[in-house]
Amino acid sequence: MESESVLVMEEPLREFCVQVFEKMGIPEDEARITTDVLVTADLRGIDSHGVARLRRYVNGLRSGMMVAHPDVQVVVETPVTATIDAGGGLGQPVSHRAMEMAIQKALDYGAGFVTVRNSNHYGIAGYYAMMALEHDCIGISMTNAAVLVVPTFGRDAMLGTNPIAVAAPAGDEPPFVLDMATSTVPRGKLEVYHRLEKPLPIGWATDETGMPTTDAGRVLENLKTRAGGGLLPLGGAGELLRGYKGYGLAVWVDIFSALLSGAAYANLVYPKDEAGNPLPSAIGHFFGAWRVDAFRPVDEFKAAMDDLQRRLKNAPKAEGAERIYIHGEKEFEEAARRTKEGIPLNPKVAADLQAIGEELGVDWSV
Amino acid sequence: MESESVLVMEEPLREFCVQVFEKMGIPEDEARITTDVLVTADLRGIDSHGVARLRRYVNGLRSGMMVAHPDVQVVVETPVTATIDAGGGLGQPVSHRAMEMAIQKALDYGAGFVTVRNSNHYGIAGYYAMMALEHDCIGISMTNAAVLVVPTFGRDAMLGTNPIAVAAPAGDEPPFVLDMATSTVPRGKLEVYHRLEKPLPIGWATDETGMPTTDAGRVLENLKTRAGGGLLPLGGAGELLRGYKGYGLAVWVDIFSALLSGAAYANLVYPKDEAGNPLPSAIGHFFGAWRVDAFRPVDEFKAAMDDLQRRLKNAPKAEGAERIYIHGEKEFEEAARRTKEGIPLNPKVAADLQAIGEELGVDWSV
Repeated sequence: MESESVLVMEEPLREFCVQVFEKMGIPEDEARITTDVLVTADLRGIDSHGVARLRRYVNGLRSGMMVAHPDVQVVVETPVTATIDAGGGLGQPVSHRAMEMAIQKALDYGAGFVTVRNSNHYGIAGYYAMMALEHDCIGISMTNAAVLVVPTFGRDAMLGTNPIAVAAPAGDEPPFVLDMATSTVPRGKLEVYHRLEKPLPIGWATDETGMPTTDAGRVLENLKTRAGGGLLPLGGAGELLRGYKGYGLAVWVDIFSALLSGAAYANLVYPKDEAGNPLPSAIGHFFGAWRVDAFRPVDEFKAAMDDLQRRLKNAPKAEGAERIYIHGEKEFEEAARRTKEGIPLNPKVAADLQAIGEELGVDWSV
Repeated sequence: MESESVLVMEEPLREFCVQVFEKMGIPEDEARITTDVLVTADLRGIDSHGVARLRRYVNGLRSGMMVAHPDVQVVVETPVTATIDAGGGLGQPVSHRAMEMAIQKALDYGAGFVTVRNSNHYGIAGYYAMMALEHDCIGISMTNAAVLVVPTFGRDAMLGTNPIAVAAPAGDEPPFVLDMATSTVPRGKLEVYHRLEKPLPIGWATDETGMPTTDAGRVLENLKTRAGGGLLPLGGAGELLRGYKGYGLAVWVDIFSALLSGAAYANLVYPKDEAGNPLPSAIGHFFGAWRVDAFRPVDEFKAAMDDLQRRLKNAPKAEGAERIYIHGEKEFEEAARRTKEGIPLNPKVAADLQAIGEELGVDWSV
């Protein structure tokens, strides 16, 4: 599909990223957290959200859209909730802190929830949900995002791909990790189809009139120029396959991530500071944890989780199908393989990382 | 579409239902709650979940599948969580109680969550989520259900239509009320297409080999005889339109409703009592509430909710479309109309209610 990939091992890739973030002024502990979120995405095979995005963070920090030393403030706190103002910093460190707070509240009280405002792209939603697992908690994570998705019957993009991630621990089986954009596909998928000159399946995107289209290049261009159209919510256009459900899930994520926290929402009206200047960045996130034994003994729950997974996996297959998957299963298998064999980087991504290294004086010898 | 409907006013319909439940041995307060859940569905235009189901409750109570005087027990409780054993009673009264507990915990601590096991069909999920609204809380409600939905790449139904409902208060605009089955459509839609001899859209259901089909009668017959196939999750068959996301949402609902509470899950393995007898009924529900001001001042949140809704509704429309809806909006409009003009009952439903009245000596003069 693509030209030959560049195989890199996890550890040197991590060290490279940490040094890049440190050169951009990020404190070491936060550089390590941000790197871990990115490399975890690469390990799990979610290449679109891994180190391929390093350039965007470097550019964001250079332009001031992302603040290296943000003034992070807990603006509201109750026994089981909190709202954090991220001060326009990187999304990953503040999200890591917010999820840790949610987990601590869950350990203390049974459940905990933290919203974050004035933040930036936080990487894969699943990373934070999965932080709950080692504490025998169920984790949830949501974020709003750049405006790419059209509401049902709408012409223009009004919402982000607004992902939802839920992670629940199991016993002998891997944890359940649902990590899904609420659009049918993310923009990256259209880019792949465009490169391959393949027609899009109907149900992925609409053109500038709001009609379903197979023309990936046209959609991408329209999104760039804000000419109308965009990605479709899960369920596609109109009501036939219930695209309003995906649209509803996207609004739900907007409410929890942005309206509860005071972040920008819908077509991202950026909040302004006291002087009337738009804040540098303003998306919002939502994090939560429920302690399993606040509902049921952990061993009983985990035994049921194992049984649920086995029932599903061992169920009869549709004609021509070989396997029924559990959410997260493919990613755990991919992570095991890539940890051992290395992460295959797209050559363009590898070249870009090398260029970043040269710009910042960080050795690219992974 | 159907033959002429029978128009009934809300109040006499309520009184009829309350009397029917009382005749079946349900205490008056619980009869009123159960009736309110059913009639609210009818008012909101969700006819499939309204009084059309009264026969199933009467039969369930007669057969002992539903217990009129269940031994309801709070089996686990923490400051912000609880698990209730419903003792095989009607789903509505215990769900109402569970949601009230969740709301009280949210008022006391910021958030509250209650799971329920050994319960029965609880009506519309949105009813319970909406109970949070008057307390300036966001509500959530989920339930698992009879096995009708096939997992991605699977041949047999392994999950319920497992709905999720989320309700969030607004200011001048109506609240946001998402209330969605995680399957593309519920079984009732197939029944409508079958009656009208219309081919099903591809993406709604599969046949006994697990392949997408347009034959509603075949799917309904297969579901009855457990021959294979069933309803498709939101996103349809296979991976093209991301049916595995709908499948993942259904598993999430199963985990929260049934695995956390100790109810039956997946293809409903009914738990057994000490003597090894299957318990009469065993589905599970999940209820939750978050207090808005535990995150952000209520007036700010509501102003943002109003603005979000107006932005979406006023956004440019797709070619040929006249209106962009907010979730719950159609139902609030329908409820206003039906409260004033009456509820149009399908004549078969009206005849069945009359028959129930005759069987139990309750006057059907609505």
